[in-house]
Amino acid sequence: MAVYTDVSDEELEAFISSYDIGTLTSFKGIAEGVENSNYLVHTDQRPYILTLYEKRVRPEDLPYFLGLMEHLAARGISCPLPVRDREGRALRELAGRPAALISFLDGLSVRRPAIEHCAGLGQALARFHLAGQDFPMSRENDLSLPGWRALYNDVSASADTVIPGLKCEIARELSHLEKHWLDDLPRGVIHADIFPDNVFFLADKFSGLIDFYFACNDMLAFDVAVCLNAWCFEADGSFNITKARAMLQAYEQERKLTETELASLPLLARGAALRFLLTRTYDLLNTDANALVKTKDPNEYLRKLRFHQRVTSYRDYGLGNH
Amino acid sequence: MAVYTDVSDEELEAFISSYDIGTLTSFKGIAEGVENSNYLVHTDQRPYILTLYEKRVRPEDLPYFLGLMEHLAARGISCPLPVRDREGRALRELAGRPAALISFLDGLSVRRPAIEHCAGLGQALARFHLAGQDFPMSRENDLSLPGWRALYNDVSASADTVIPGLKCEIARELSHLEKHWLDDLPRGVIHADIFPDNVFFLADKFSGLIDFYFACNDMLAFDVAVCLNAWCFEADGSFNITKARAMLQAYEQERKLTETELASLPLLARGAALRFLLTRTYDLLNTDANALVKTKDPNEYLRKLRFHQRVTSYRDYGLGNH
Repeated sequence: MAVYTDVSDEELEAFISSYDIGTLTSFKGIAEGVENSNYLVHTDQRPYILTLYEKRVRPEDLPYFLGLMEHLAARGISCPLPVRDREGRALRELAGRPAALISFLDGLSVRRPAIEHCAGLGQALARFHLAGQDFPMSRENDLSLPGWRALYNDVSASADTVIPGLKCEIARELSHLEKHWLDDLPRGVIHADIFPDNVFFLADKFSGLIDFYFACNDMLAFDVAVCLNAWCFEADGSFNITKARAMLQAYEQERKLTETELASLPLLARGAALRFLLTRTYDLLNTDANALVKTKDPNEYLRKLRFHQRVTSYRDYGLGNH
Repeated sequence: MAVYTDVSDEELEAFISSYDIGTLTSFKGIAEGVENSNYLVHTDQRPYILTLYEKRVRPEDLPYFLGLMEHLAARGISCPLPVRDREGRALRELAGRPAALISFLDGLSVRRPAIEHCAGLGQALARFHLAGQDFPMSRENDLSLPGWRALYNDVSASADTVIPGLKCEIARELSHLEKHWLDDLPRGVIHADIFPDNVFFLADKFSGLIDFYFACNDMLAFDVAVCLNAWCFEADGSFNITKARAMLQAYEQERKLTETELASLPLLARGAALRFLLTRTYDLLNTDANALVKTKDPNEYLRKLRFHQRVTSYRDYGLGNH
C-alpha cells in the first residue's frame, strides 16, 4: 500500500487539463501497489488511474511497459490502456516523477482463488502469451538466473537472521539451478508477477490483468511456474493439485505446452520460488521500519521451493500424460 | 493513509449484496484517513465509500456520526450520506468491525488553500453550524479541556524527547486555559477536525465536507478557532491575516459571531492549537515505528500556539470593529 509522492494542486490541475478526458471531480490515493504511487482520478466522464513511477522502476523501461499495454489492448487482452495527452504522449512527468494516466479497469482481485479462478487465469495467461508474440520491443528479465546470484550476494551475510540456515539452503539451490537451468524453451513476453492481486474477475470470470511493471522477454513457461506458486498453494502451505490441473488444462486449451516445457516445469517452479524467496528476503532486510509498506513473508516461498524440490514430474502438478 | 482490516471475498460479496446498489465492479483500498479503513466501492451504478471503523472510534458513537450526516444532508449540507441496506440499517458489521457504506462525494481537497478556499470554507462552516442546531442527538467533546489534561498526563514524562522544553510549555498553557476557559458561548454541533483534507472543492468552490468522526457538541466558535489554525497559516509558519479575514467575514455572512465569541477567539485559538499539539505529541510517542501511518509534526502546532499567545484581540485575525 503506498502513496510515496505528493502532488500539488497546481501540478495536478495542469497535468489533467493536458488530456482530453473531461473535468477532474475527484483524486484519491490508492492503498495498492508496492512499487509506485497510484491515484484514482475521477472526471465528469469516467475514472482513471494515475501512476507515478518511483525509484524502483527504471525510466528507460517505461516505453516497454506502456507500449506492451497498448499492444495487448489492441489484441483484445483486457488490460489498462495508457491514455495519450493532446500531444499524443503516454509517458509524462508529474511532481518530478515519470507518470502515466491509464484507463480504469473494472474487476476485483480475489484473495483466495477458487478452482474456477485458477482456470480463468490459465486461459488468460495463454492468451496473453500468444498476444505478446508479435510485440516488437524487448526487455531482459533482470530477475532471472544472473539476477538471483546478485541478490544472493546481497543477502547472504544476513540471510540467517531472517530464517536460520537460509543462506546455505539458497546457495545449494542456486548451484543446482545454475547447473541445470535452460534457455531453449519457447520465449516471448512474460508478465513475471501474476499474483492474485494483479488479476481481476467479475462474477468469477476473468476480467483483466494489471501491473505490467515486471514484464520482460523470457521463457513463457517461467510465467506458468510463477502462477503455479502464486495460485495453487493454500494458506496452510499445502499444494492444491486440483487448482494446478485446472490452471494448466485451461492454459493448454489456448496454447499447448511442449514436451520440453512440461519436463522443465518442476525446475522452473523451483526457480520461480527462489526468485520470490530472494526478493522477499532482500526486502525484509532492506526495508526501513518506518516504511509504509508491509513486507511479505519469505518463509512462504521457502516452503514452496522445498515442495518443488521433491517433485519429479509435471504429473505431480495434475497433468496426465500428453 | 491506511487500510487496517482485510475483507475476504465472501464477506464482501455478502455485504454488498444486502444493499440495493447494483453489482460490485471494483473495490480498492484508499490511502486516506488515519482512523479507519476506507475502501472505494464501484458498482455498475455509482461509486461509494465503505468505511470500517477501527479501534479509535467508539462503536457507541457511530449512531451520532451517521445520524448527523443524514441530518445535515437532509438540510442541504453537502456531505456523505450513509446508505441504508434492504433492512434499513446504516450501521453494519463487516470483517468483525462496525462498518458503513456512504455515498461518494465529488470534489478535491486542496493542499494549500488560497484565499477563495478560506472564504468558501468560512461560509460552509457557518451553514453547517446552523444546520446542526436542531440535531437531536448529543455527544460530548472528549478532546476539550478535561481531555487535554488527561493527554498531558499521558505525554508529560516523554514530551521533552519530542521537543526540548515541551513539557513545561504545555503545563503553563494548560494552567492558563484551565483558569480562563469559558463555557457560556453559543453551543451546537461542531465538526472539530476541519482540516483541508476534510473539505472538498470543485473549480475552487466549496463542494462538500467529510469525516465527521470527531463531531460533537461544543462551543461553535471552537470550530472557528480550529479552522483558523488549520487554514490560515502558511507552510513557513506565518499567519496569513488575509485568509483569516476572508474566512471570518464569509462565516459572518451566514452567522454573526457574538461579541463574546469574538473576544474569546484568541483564547479559543490557543486551546485549539494545544489540542492538536497534544494529540500529535501523543501520536508521535505512541505510534509503532512499523505503523502504516505518517505521524504529523507537533512543532507546527507549538508555533501556532505561540502565535496566539501573543494575540491580544480578534482584530489581529483580520476582522474590523463590529
